[in-house]
Amino acid sequence: MAEGPNSSKMEKIVALCRRRGFIFQSSEIYGGINGFWDYGPLGVELKRNLKEAWWRDVVRCAPKGPDGQILEMVGLDCSIIMNRRVWEASGHATGFNDPMSMCKNCKKLFRSDQVWDLLKDSPWVTSLAAACLTPDGPGLTFHGPGARAWATTKGKKLAPGLALVRNPTIILSRLAEDLAQDPKAAVVLPNMLKLMATEQRSATGLDTPCPECGGVLTEPRQFNLMFQTHTGAVRDDASMTYLRPETAQGIFVNFRNVTDTSRVKIPFGIAQIGKAFRNEVTPRNFTFRSREFEQMEIEFFAHPSTAGEWYTWWRDWRFQWWQGIGLTSANLQLREHSREELAHYARDGAGTSDIEYRFPFTDPGFGELEGVAHRTDFDLRQHAEFSGLGDKLKYFDQERNERYFPHVIEPSAGADRGTLALLCEAYHDDPGRPSGVVLKFHPRMAPIKAAIFPLVDKEGMPEIAEKLYMDLRQTWNIQFDVKQNIGKRYARMDEAGTPFCFTVDTQSLSDQTVTVRYRDTLQQERLPIGGVREFLAEKIGG
Amino acid sequence: MAEGPNSSKMEKIVALCRRRGFIFQSSEIYGGINGFWDYGPLGVELKRNLKEAWWRDVVRCAPKGPDGQILEMVGLDCSIIMNRRVWEASGHATGFNDPMSMCKNCKKLFRSDQVWDLLKDSPWVTSLAAACLTPDGPGLTFHGPGARAWATTKGKKLAPGLALVRNPTIILSRLAEDLAQDPKAAVVLPNMLKLMATEQRSATGLDTPCPECGGVLTEPRQFNLMFQTHTGAVRDDASMTYLRPETAQGIFVNFRNVTDTSRVKIPFGIAQIGKAFRNEVTPRNFTFRSREFEQMEIEFFAHPSTAGEWYTWWRDWRFQWWQGIGLTSANLQLREHSREELAHYARDGAGTSDIEYRFPFTDPGFGELEGVAHRTDFDLRQHAEFSGLGDKLKYFDQERNERYFPHVIEPSAGADRGTLALLCEAYHDDPGRPSGVVLKFHPRMAPIKAAIFPLVDKEGMPEIAEKLYMDLRQTWNIQFDVKQNIGKRYARMDEAGTPFCFTVDTQSLSDQTVTVRYRDTLQQERLPIGGVREFLAEKIGG
Repeated sequence: MAEGPNSSKMEKIVALCRRRGFIFQSSEIYGGINGFWDYGPLGVELKRNLKEAWWRDVVRCAPKGPDGQILEMVGLDCSIIMNRRVWEASGHATGFNDPMSMCKNCKKLFRSDQVWDLLKDSPWVTSLAAACLTPDGPGLTFHGPGARAWATTKGKKLAPGLALVRNPTIILSRLAEDLAQDPKAAVVLPNMLKLMATEQRSATGLDTPCPECGGVLTEPRQFNLMFQTHTGAVRDDASMTYLRPETAQGIFVNFRNVTDTSRVKIPFGIAQIGKAFRNEVTPRNFTFRSREFEQMEIEFFAHPSTAGEWYTWWRDWRFQWWQGIGLTSANLQLREHSREELAHYARDGAGTSDIEYRFPFTDPGFGELEGVAHRTDFDLRQHAEFSGLGDKLKYFDQERNERYFPHVIEPSAGADRGTLALLCEAYHDDPGRPSGVVLKFHPRMAPIKAAIFPLVDKEGMPEIAEKLYMDLRQTWNIQFDVKQNIGKRYARMDEAGTPFCFTVDTQSLSDQTVTVRYRDTLQQERLPIGGVREFLAEKIGG
Repeated sequence: MAEGPNSSKMEKIVALCRRRGFIFQSSEIYGGINGFWDYGPLGVELKRNLKEAWWRDVVRCAPKGPDGQILEMVGLDCSIIMNRRVWEASGHATGFNDPMSMCKNCKKLFRSDQVWDLLKDSPWVTSLAAACLTPDGPGLTFHGPGARAWATTKGKKLAPGLALVRNPTIILSRLAEDLAQDPKAAVVLPNMLKLMATEQRSATGLDTPCPECGGVLTEPRQFNLMFQTHTGAVRDDASMTYLRPETAQGIFVNFRNVTDTSRVKIPFGIAQIGKAFRNEVTPRNFTFRSREFEQMEIEFFAHPSTAGEWYTWWRDWRFQWWQGIGLTSANLQLREHSREELAHYARDGAGTSDIEYRFPFTDPGFGELEGVAHRTDFDLRQHAEFSGLGDKLKYFDQERNERYFPHVIEPSAGADRGTLALLCEAYHDDPGRPSGVVLKFHPRMAPIKAAIFPLVDKEGMPEIAEKLYMDLRQTWNIQFDVKQNIGKRYARMDEAGTPFCFTVDTQSLSDQTVTVRYRDTLQQERLPIGGVREFLAEKIGG
């Protein structure tokens, strides 16, 4: 992707990620693989910081709940490949389908609900619109001769499957009739594109063109999003299983194991971080919609009568958490789902909300970072039925002297989407800096917490600097850098989002102080070397 | 698995792992899935400690090399699914095969190199040997009548596929002839079993019986160990790809990305922790040989002329590292490979060694924890060729003014095997304790670093204890427990391997001290509450 003064913000972020080693395309030297990404040296630290902060704040230092009691939270780490019955019970084997359309001409597949978004940004639509459509109030004006010229030149290359391109005379004459009958109705973009895509008009209505080549798309069909594989030596139906499409089910199938072996009592939560896989038909928006991704999921088990309160509590606490690690702008929002959006397991009255971020590619809309769902007792009941354990999977509540399937509140966050949101939030163009750009990460999230620079590589400065480095790195990820002039070293740290740079200079030799340079304000001040550790501990927290 | 006074050490460890929530069978409520395991609340913390210690000691606080300079080490986190060309270049797509044999009777598959080990422990062989074979000096004495009786009773149930069972008269009369001709030669176990398995003697030799049912095994055939899946909507040969069988290749294909985007100079290393998958035909020995596992891999890039020294240095440093996290017994050993064992990429003179642990199931032998291999420039050259990048994948060494493919030293450790070795090393029967068992983890590895107990749940003790807990958990995983009597609480912590328990008692109220109880010695002493943090920091280290 080009990175010039006119590139969009997202293009600049993607280019920076590539250039500074945050995120690379997977298998890049082989032309990549659609929907898979690798984290480079800076990216892996950023993502680790996010996951570590989550684990610390959710499991090790679990928060106090609404009653002031510390929540009971334990961790779990389940396998990616599980017994396939898990996915029959969860509904994924039958219900985890996206309606898909295939182009009859180029055979590409598209998620049906994304086709119009893709068309809007498609090169051939942009080119066609420039050639024959001009804005006219709320609608468009259509220029027949422009369309004909386009169809016989650019159109042949950009949209070889489009009916207009293959048969301009018929399509344009029919279009002229349509416009004569009803001059206004036809001239909105979706309708115009359908008219230009339809060779044979029929009772089933107009065709939808392919965003890639203009060919006709099939009617939507179901397509299961789980990756399939086979375990064992024989590749047959009996040995077929799936890569998990979510980490949640690993928690549900271990519910009884956890209650049997640790001494948790309801309400309590189980937390897990791990990879999940969805065979997205059209992966896009950088790491936002990829085929391999990492989740940070909590399943919190509560008595059905209190689940509603816990839902509200978790929703609000999770929203605050994201703010606490640096997503403080108006780009973060909490959105309660409307009734129509509720998932298959959500029962009347059970809420679902999304914590969303306004990414550059969703702007002015938002994209989901974390979903907080009241899943009721759907999953445990399903596993009770499919495993044959029945009531044995129920929880016995000693205090209430009651046996029941607990209700579940699930705050489910995306580690890759979280990392991407941190990058987008941190990104700031700053023409006043040598780097032209600065990443203003929250210190807790910054891949490198501090850099230690000897001003020059002599006069005892490297020794003092290295001593400080060796001490600080016991606790944090610290960079030690003696190469090039100090301005270039600052510039590199601005691009990496390092919040503090400590420089050992001539004065350090006499009074045991260093300068600290603040990334965000560019201010500099002197600190005693002995105070640097405390300074960092206070600034970084966590 | 039963857990009684007569169970083997391994059975007891597996049972403890299940009972205390270290490790569960994956998908247990659905009857499990062969070769996959889940980490429970204690197991996930143990494994996290191992991985964190590795990352800290390898990446964040990289050691000083042989010249006293701190090594340049960066991290990476690559996708599990990669472009399939990666595996064609690496040799895995064609060469990553195990010879396998299938039983013609029960259709079970076995790794050919494991068949005799499996036969030795097979129930039907044990039963058959008891019925008709008695030790006689270095060989065995054979009792025909015993064999006939067995074949018509127990044998029918245990080994229905065995020729001896299906046709006792023919097999036994032929056996009698053999023994008459050469009384000694036939009576060793492998030969006896083959004779009893062979219905039709032919020029190709005797048959090998199936460890499961006694049927005839096929000749060994190749079987690729990579899990296959398909990306995208169309499931055809073009869309087929693999789950990575090792994390190493992700590092090699990103070699140029890392040198281009960070400022590492040779010699330097890239480190990665992540899951890998091998479709083992006979997963066994608990988590030791499983189908989904996690690796901690370093690829260290050096000039070919110095690679030999780096190999030796890494081998020794890694061996020390395992000792430093608690594998201090004689069960850990370093073993240099013999020339015959060297892998396909290892060239003359390039060494490979294993850091091995004597697990209860390998005793008196050892099992591999980590391999340290000098991989030469094999992988980079392969990727240069297969990607078409050729010399563009070479490294330019400014100091030497030389362009070359660096040699690679690969210390590749198993996180699951490491976790299992920590469990085995820690496990100690101790009939003198209420728990009967204690896990003596190195404090740095212990899932719970310390427990805080108010002696009774009143008189202000819980408040003091909770205050201490809230402070300490900022840094470590700490347990706060007020339930049941203090003896039971100690017992639980012994089974969890918690090295220190701090108890708040009546005296604490007046003099602000607590008792600390040492897990290993059972000694108790008093400490000022204000000194607990420093006490733990010193004991835990890391």
